[in-house]
Amino acid sequence: MSQKLERDPLQDSPFMRACRREPVPYTPVWLMRQAGRYMKEYREVRARHTFLEMCKKPEVASEVTVYAQERLNVDAAIIFADILLILEPMGISLEFTKGEGPVIHNPVREGRDVERLREVESVDALDFVMEAIRLTRRSLPSNIPLIGFSGAPFTLASYMTEGGGSKNYVRTKRMMYLDASAWHEMMSLIARALSKYLNAQIEAGAQAVQIFDSWVGCLSPADYRQYVLPHTREVIQNIKPNVPVIHFGTGTATLLQLMKEAGGDVIGLDWRVELDEEWEKLGDVAIMGNLDPISLFADADFVRRQAKRILEQARGRPGHIFNLGHGILPETPVDNVVALVEAVHELSQR
Amino acid sequence: MSQKLERDPLQDSPFMRACRREPVPYTPVWLMRQAGRYMKEYREVRARHTFLEMCKKPEVASEVTVYAQERLNVDAAIIFADILLILEPMGISLEFTKGEGPVIHNPVREGRDVERLREVESVDALDFVMEAIRLTRRSLPSNIPLIGFSGAPFTLASYMTEGGGSKNYVRTKRMMYLDASAWHEMMSLIARALSKYLNAQIEAGAQAVQIFDSWVGCLSPADYRQYVLPHTREVIQNIKPNVPVIHFGTGTATLLQLMKEAGGDVIGLDWRVELDEEWEKLGDVAIMGNLDPISLFADADFVRRQAKRILEQARGRPGHIFNLGHGILPETPVDNVVALVEAVHELSQR
Repeated sequence: MSQKLERDPLQDSPFMRACRREPVPYTPVWLMRQAGRYMKEYREVRARHTFLEMCKKPEVASEVTVYAQERLNVDAAIIFADILLILEPMGISLEFTKGEGPVIHNPVREGRDVERLREVESVDALDFVMEAIRLTRRSLPSNIPLIGFSGAPFTLASYMTEGGGSKNYVRTKRMMYLDASAWHEMMSLIARALSKYLNAQIEAGAQAVQIFDSWVGCLSPADYRQYVLPHTREVIQNIKPNVPVIHFGTGTATLLQLMKEAGGDVIGLDWRVELDEEWEKLGDVAIMGNLDPISLFADADFVRRQAKRILEQARGRPGHIFNLGHGILPETPVDNVVALVEAVHELSQR
Repeated sequence: MSQKLERDPLQDSPFMRACRREPVPYTPVWLMRQAGRYMKEYREVRARHTFLEMCKKPEVASEVTVYAQERLNVDAAIIFADILLILEPMGISLEFTKGEGPVIHNPVREGRDVERLREVESVDALDFVMEAIRLTRRSLPSNIPLIGFSGAPFTLASYMTEGGGSKNYVRTKRMMYLDASAWHEMMSLIARALSKYLNAQIEAGAQAVQIFDSWVGCLSPADYRQYVLPHTREVIQNIKPNVPVIHFGTGTATLLQLMKEAGGDVIGLDWRVELDEEWEKLGDVAIMGNLDPISLFADADFVRRQAKRILEQARGRPGHIFNLGHGILPETPVDNVVALVEAVHELSQR
């Protein structure tokens, strides 16, 4: 098997090797939301399309995906898409409003609303994502892996329940606490849809998949264990074998052990944790992180010092993928992003 | 000294004993934002005044403070005020807009803006707070301690810099990273003002003070240590002796050790941490917490089970003050709040 891997430039890339915790010539780096509004070229494309149109036009999604990888010289591409796309085939009506972000017009407000959600038998309705992946795979260099992704069950359930962004997750937690059976039914439904969707992305050409549990940091460890862990585990267990899964969240300092229990070859760390300590505690798993995205608003010198600090914490232990602790913000100076990638490559040469 | 304390019903109250980690007949409980919009009687008062008016009219502030303590039968009162009030004598123009929360009209956007901040020589301009404390102290039962408070230096500096609420703290962190000397100057100025303000509240009749670092959870431990810890420590060191200081923040799982280093007799824990584990790690300090405020949106039965779980984690170790992990939300059902206080008292009887 290892011989076969060595002959495949994708499987032998620093990113894929790091996912498998194998030694690498330098620390691979990519950045969440690397194809985003902080980039002039992205804004030009975005000016001609709505956000959902960009997701739904494979040639556009592919164009921004490939461009970002090339412009930044990062070690992986992530397909341009949205964490919420899987909600549409479940019967959720999704809109992206200017400034407000995603809005759901028919949220799940109580137990009986769960009954009108659709079981996702096929993800054909999302074939535009798979087509974008196919196109992108053909356009990317042969040694640059492509990451597929979706929101994780909890984050998707929260959006469904709150109807959009939320500060306190009152509706979500209220359903969890007062109607646990409806909650678990909804989470199972999401989990089944997610496995299909992520596997379809893999079949279309993604080398790894990432599950974004962006909002899970609002939960106590006890609630995570009871209401979330079994469902995230189900998704991850059903991913095709030998495809690395990145399991990511923010505000997860007290959830990381449980997230590891739920599964994932790579655990994402936000900037609130010390990489060395957490990795030590997590043990036998690869990690991704963990620069504060706001560091990129300082200057190239500052960015380089921060990259150095994080690389020193990782001490060359196999299995570190450099990334931010969350996505790049729209106003981030692009030069600092380029400087970060250069610094990581240069400072981590073995 | 202990004889003198025993003769003073305030100093011998369960709340004050818990602050000093002495044994108590039952676990004292109070709730952040216990005088708030979730209560009909509060909304009636609020309908006749703006939020800032309520803060600035001592008889009104006192009325809602005393009423909440009585209605809930909690073991401490906290003076009705706002964490940001100290900003006004520093030269910051503060307004509370409907729905949007606090807005600052002359934010500190860069280093040179720090120069126009005023050194607070005297807190006479905030005498309305001290007068509210004097009135409240006279109205409260003789065994119910009154807590004074303010925002902590970082949270105040963030508001000053962002000009209001923030999601990503870009301006705050940018100043920290790129103009550290201006940052430290601003934080020192705040720290000096805060010590004066909190000591004036104590002189007016507060038995304890709380420092709310509500926003500090956006920082990495390294940033907290460098940019925040020395200033919070300065505030706490300058508080009058023998007056307990409660040091509170949210999203602080990875900052708790450093917050303890900064000082405080009682460390606030939000609901994201397991109380038993964190207290064990923190060692010789009292703790306050740590129920998820959203639990109060379930029913009395659920609330009681959660109270039991937390009390079991505390295992009667001296020095636990029961509280939420953050403030009560406006839509919280008041009956559940009453049920919580009853449950804590009943389940913790020694």
